[in-house]
Parts: sequence; C-alpha cells; structure tokens
Amino acid sequence: MATLGAQKKHKVTIVGSGNWGTTMSKLVAENAKENPNLFEQTVTMWVFEEEVTIPESSRVYKPEDKGEKHKISELINTRHENVKYLPNITLPDNVVANPDVVDACKNSSILIFVLPHQFIQRVCDQLAGKIMPWARAICCTKGVDVGEKGIRLMSEAIGMRLNIYCGALSGANIASEIAQEKYSETTVAYDPPPMDSRAPTPKGSPTSSTVDLISPGKSVPSARSAQLKALPSDYPPLSHENVKKLFHRPYFHVRMVSDVAGVSLSGALKNIVALAAGFVDGLGWGDNAKAAVMRVGILEMVRFGKAFFADSVHTSTFTEESCGVADVVTSCMGGRNFRCAKMAIERGKSIAEIEKTELNGQMLQGTSTAYEVNSFLKTQGMEGEFPLFTAVYNILEGNVKPEQIPDLIEPKD
Amino acid sequence: MATLGAQKKHKVTIVGSGNWGTTMSKLVAENAKENPNLFEQTVTMWVFEEEVTIPESSRVYKPEDKGEKHKISELINTRHENVKYLPNITLPDNVVANPDVVDACKNSSILIFVLPHQFIQRVCDQLAGKIMPWARAICCTKGVDVGEKGIRLMSEAIGMRLNIYCGALSGANIASEIAQEKYSETTVAYDPPPMDSRAPTPKGSPTSSTVDLISPGKSVPSARSAQLKALPSDYPPLSHENVKKLFHRPYFHVRMVSDVAGVSLSGALKNIVALAAGFVDGLGWGDNAKAAVMRVGILEMVRFGKAFFADSVHTSTFTEESCGVADVVTSCMGGRNFRCAKMAIERGKSIAEIEKTELNGQMLQGTSTAYEVNSFLKTQGMEGEFPLFTAVYNILEGNVKPEQIPDLIEPKD
Repeated sequence: MATLGAQKKHKVTIVGSGNWGTTMSKLVAENAKENPNLFEQTVTMWVFEEEVTIPESSRVYKPEDKGEKHKISELINTRHENVKYLPNITLPDNVVANPDVVDACKNSSILIFVLPHQFIQRVCDQLAGKIMPWARAICCTKGVDVGEKGIRLMSEAIGMRLNIYCGALSGANIASEIAQEKYSETTVAYDPPPMDSRAPTPKGSPTSSTVDLISPGKSVPSARSAQLKALPSDYPPLSHENVKKLFHRPYFHVRMVSDVAGVSLSGALKNIVALAAGFVDGLGWGDNAKAAVMRVGILEMVRFGKAFFADSVHTSTFTEESCGVADVVTSCMGGRNFRCAKMAIERGKSIAEIEKTELNGQMLQGTSTAYEVNSFLKTQGMEGEFPLFTAVYNILEGNVKPEQIPDLIEPKD
Repeated sequence: MATLGAQKKHKVTIVGSGNWGTTMSKLVAENAKENPNLFEQTVTMWVFEEEVTIPESSRVYKPEDKGEKHKISELINTRHENVKYLPNITLPDNVVANPDVVDACKNSSILIFVLPHQFIQRVCDQLAGKIMPWARAICCTKGVDVGEKGIRLMSEAIGMRLNIYCGALSGANIASEIAQEKYSETTVAYDPPPMDSRAPTPKGSPTSSTVDLISPGKSVPSARSAQLKALPSDYPPLSHENVKKLFHRPYFHVRMVSDVAGVSLSGALKNIVALAAGFVDGLGWGDNAKAAVMRVGILEMVRFGKAFFADSVHTSTFTEESCGVADVVTSCMGGRNFRCAKMAIERGKSIAEIEKTELNGQMLQGTSTAYEVNSFLKTQGMEGEFPLFTAVYNILEGNVKPEQIPDLIEPKD
C-alpha cells in the first residue's frame, strides 16, 4: 500500500562499522530482506579499513589464519563477521562492507550515521556534494555539541553539512545486547519539513563556516526546508510507517516520534543525571534517593528542551520514550558515568582522579556535558532554573558536596 | 499569611504505629514544631497496644528492663522510641502515643492513616461518627481494592466510611531510610471538592453497605461533596501550601498534586510492573530489556488510570511524580516483587512456589494485584489494551512464558 506506484527501492548505507554500526547493519539488513518492496537487498556498510588478525578463539578462525593479517572489510564480506568490533555475531549475507565512504554512499537514499562523535565532521566533509540530493539521514550517534553560544544537535550538524534532512535514533541500547537479539526498545525521531520538489539540486555543499550553532529558540530546519530536495515520487515514501520498517525487529522495538531535538538532547543530558545518581548512591543513601534524583533529572531534561527548543520539543519524549526515561534508568543502573561517580564518592576521590585511574584520563561523557551545559546556562543567566545540572557541575568543581544535593534541588516555593 | 484570621490550630493524629506510621509521626511532629501557627504541638499516634521486651542491644535498654514486659505506648511516651517497629530511632518528644483509637482521633482535624490494608475497614468502623465532622484525612497505605465490578481507592474507602475528605500520599519511600533521614521524595494528592459550609453536621455515619465500589468513569467525590462539611473559618485553610508543611522535610521532599486516583493507582499497579521487570531480569536479558519493560509498564499505568478515572487522572502523576516513575524505578531495582519474580525465573520455579519457600506462603502484592486487575479487565473486555498486565497474569497462570513478553507487548500497528 505504502509502495503503490513506487518503482525504485531505497538503498541503505550504514556510515560506521564499530560495535553499534555493525549491530545496526545486522538489523537493517534483516529488515531489508523482510521488506523487499521498500529496500534494496544489499545493505552497504562503510568500514574504516584496518588490518586485523583473527583470534584463535573466534568461530570463523581457520588454521591457515594463524599470524595472517586480513582486511576487516574482506572478513565481513567473506566470513560475515566483524571480528574486531562485534565478535561472534554472524552478519546477514546482504551486509556488504565498502572501505570507500564516497562510493559506499553515492547511490543511497538512506544514510544511517553511526560514527563516533569526533569523526562526524570529517566524514560529512568528504561526502558533501557527492550523495544523492534527496537522500535522508538518521543519526545514531548520541550527544549534542553545547557551546557558550548555543546547542548544535548531531543530526543538525549532519543535515546542514550535507544539505539533507537528518533524523535521530536513541534509546536504552547497549549494542552487544542488541546484536545478541536480547530485547530492547529505541526511539526514532523523523520529521522532515515540507520541501519544495521543484527546487534545483544544490550545486556543491555548504562550507563549514555556514554551519552555525543553533541559538536558543531558533528553528533551523524550517528555515532550511526550501533548500532541501523532496524525494522523487518513484521512491516509496519515507513515512513513519516505512522508516519504522527499517529499524523495528522482534527484539528491537521502535517507537516513532517527530521530536528530533528531544531525542538528541535526551542522549546527552541523561549522562549528567547518571553522575548525580552515582554521587547519591556513593553516599549510601539507598534506592529512594537515587530514584528521586533520576526523577528530578528527567524533569530538568524536559525543562532544558522546552527552554531552548520550544518549537519542537515534547515533554513525552523525555518522560515516555525509550530515549528518555528508559535510557536514564539504564544509565543510572550500570552505565559508566554512574559507576565512576559512585566510585569517586566511595573512595573519597574527585571524578578527575577516577577518570585518570579508571579511564586512562579519558573524560566521561557526563563530565564534559555537565561543563558544556553549565557554561551555556551561565551565558543565559539560567543556572538557577536547573539546580540538579548546576549541582553536578559544582560538585565536579569542588564547590559543593554531594551531601548538599537535596538542599540544592529543593524547590523554593 | 496563610493563617491570617485563624485562631485554631490543626490537631494531627497518626492512625497507625508500624514502621511507616512511626516514621510518619516523627516527621509530622518535627513539622508541627516548625509551624506552631498551623499545628498543635502535640502529635498523637494511635498505637495498637502490645507488650514488648526491650532487646539488650537497644539504646534505650536499662539493666532493670531485663525480662520485663512494657506497654509499647508507654515506651514511646517515656523513652521516645518504638523499640519493636522502628528501633534505634529517637522520636521527637511531641509524639504522644495513645492506645485508644477513638480518643486519639476525636478532636483532630487532620487524620493520617498509615495502617496495613486489612485493618482499615475495622478501624474506620470504630471511628465513624466519633470524629470531628470537618476533619480531613490523608491515606498513606498503598494499594487499591480491585474487584470484578470496579476499583475502590483506599482513600475513598476511608472518606466514605468516615464521611470526610481523604487525600493520598505515596512515593518511592522505604520507611526505615526516611526514619534515618536519608533523602527521598513523595507525592501528596489533596483536592477536596467544593463543600457546603452550611450543611449540617452529619448525624451518625454511613453504614458499610453504602460504601460501593466505584464503577469506571464514576466520580464519587463530587457526588458526595454536598455531604462533606467545610472546615470552619477559624482554622488555617488546608491549602496545598499548608498540607505540604505537614509532610515536607529537608530529607523528605513533597510534591503536591490534585490527582488522588493517580497517586493511589500508582502505588498498586507498580507492583505488576515490578514482577514483569523481575521476569525479564531473571532471563538474563540485561538492563535494556528491564528498562523497556518499566517504560511500557508506566504507560500501561497511565492508560489504566485514563480508562477508569478519566475525570481526574493526569498522565504526569505517573510519568513525572515520585509516586509514579520514581516508585516504579525503586520497585524494579530491589523491591520484593521484583526479587521474587527474578528468583522464580532463575530457579525455574513458579511464583507460587517462591511465595511458599521465601514468604511462608504469603502472597506478593504484585501477584494479587495482577490477578485482581486481570479479573476486572476481563469483565470490561479490555485485556488486549493492557498487554503487559495481561502477560504478567498469564505468566503467573503458566499460560505463556516470560520469553514471550516482547512479542506480547509489541504494538500491533
């Protein structure tokens, strides 16, 4: 029904081949097979080429592999396993690895970005102007860039660099569990603005300098919509129903929403909440206190979204969807931010010391997000409206003690 | 300001002296001291009299107590400790225990019910017609009575038997942690209907037979409001602001709402969700799966409230308040229902067997609520609209396996 009149099918490329990218390829390739009217059978995965040896414990190891180096893309294409980033999971044979990012994406109408944060800009720069002008993207990388001047969603960074529409996927999702087909849920936000189907294909790409930070309240997608190219009518429409068919599996339940900003913010701000929950748990205050901090944290996430993305953010994205409440729960049960914050309190050390000893000096996502968000809130004069986020920042800075959290977040009414 | 013109003060009685009742007396008595314009200094606690011996390990033990029996009310009044139900916690000296329930309540304008479920009817029958006609009650007992014909909130059962208005308090609250002044939150629902201040004081009390189950959609409080007696104007008004002052402490943060049905339903339905989370965790499916089941469960709680208490239930009571999301989180982290359900799956036993071996045959609250809710949903022809609640019932009955949960709760759209 949805494909009535459609002659073409969507070609899908997964941009990224780490733990999460390879898992995404697996489930999207399974769905391509089940929906042959919507999607081309081959699902391409762009692989950052590496030479790897196959561990002897691997199921795909053969005696002649001993000491041999293999290209990771060849192993995926011949043995259907990413031995380095998703070992012991067999990939469907319609996942085809391609180490050339431009070639992997050039004819695809759907691009799924699953790259580490720091590679997104560089890869988008390589792709700009070399993809189909009506392609659509979904960003599966969590996090947002928060600076003093504003907030940039990953999806917007991708969309603006490539001049295409980009949605977002986020949820309580641990890649290795999904790869093993353990049940979980996710949230996909997809809501392209009305587009002018007569608009000419853009020549060239926006340069980096045109990608500005989004200022509070500004609704960039609608401002850009006239430049975006509509999907030709011989493709199946990318309705919520069809986008859901790309991701939904019996073990991976998808809920579609329209709130890209809410989904993106959830994935970033939950890490601040996880630090707060870790602090409180480290004090030995029990599950009541931890649940209270999580609840207050979810409501500050809502307030943040409403304050800075009033046009589009829905409360329910945070309070009812997998990317919100469920991801907060998972992150506060055993996530890295939670565990390190708890450890810091229990050992009487600073988070910075824990980062040094436990993470080889790598900064926790929650720590950097807490600093970025605080710096932004300061410029807005709004620290007081986000007492939990502000308390986490001040604990990290040594200005206040975790024991003060209840007092600091007590509503003054 | 709130007490302008008020000459009287509210006398408060705690009806109940178990773990939670004694904790409630402590915090209410602390607040009475801090708000001498609103509340009388003496806070009465009705104590079901027992003879107890003081353990030698107790802080209040003296050598002459060896082998001696003491009345529990006398120990509370002289040594300021409930050695049996809240050992090692010093109660404020303005908590006064009274073993006569009628005498304890007769002059009180605020009655706080903290009784085990099964004692509420009997105690209300003793009190009916012997309390101040304008008294207000708050019910801190969790749970609702769900029968095939309808749902009765505890607060409504109390209110109808005593012919007074009764609100509700519920949250992620473990009494012993609150007694130790560990931080937690709670939700208080309080929303008396407009009352006719000229209505005569009711003579006598409604008999048990007038207390019907509430049928879906029926709004009993408004039907009864004309019978309720307004608070005389020489008392401080019982506004949200003043009710909050009765419960809110630096370690016990109160949020006031108006949704009595939502607060009451949360406290009951969360136990079904905790069983589901325990089943999934017992399968070793990880935190993603557990968080997904919790999220789906919260939304079924909302749907249940909206279906049967459409007049008054707010989504946010479940998704944003301590009684909702926070209590679900706490119950699914370490509550008894969660632990027993998990244990059942891990050991390959039925919940009934676990109840026998671990709880001396006592039934879990989640189990009985799951059966009651299912029986009610069947009479409404609405099992299909609550797939998680229905799945839990069917797992308890052995009709389906926990592994089928994802399939059973998958939205059919």
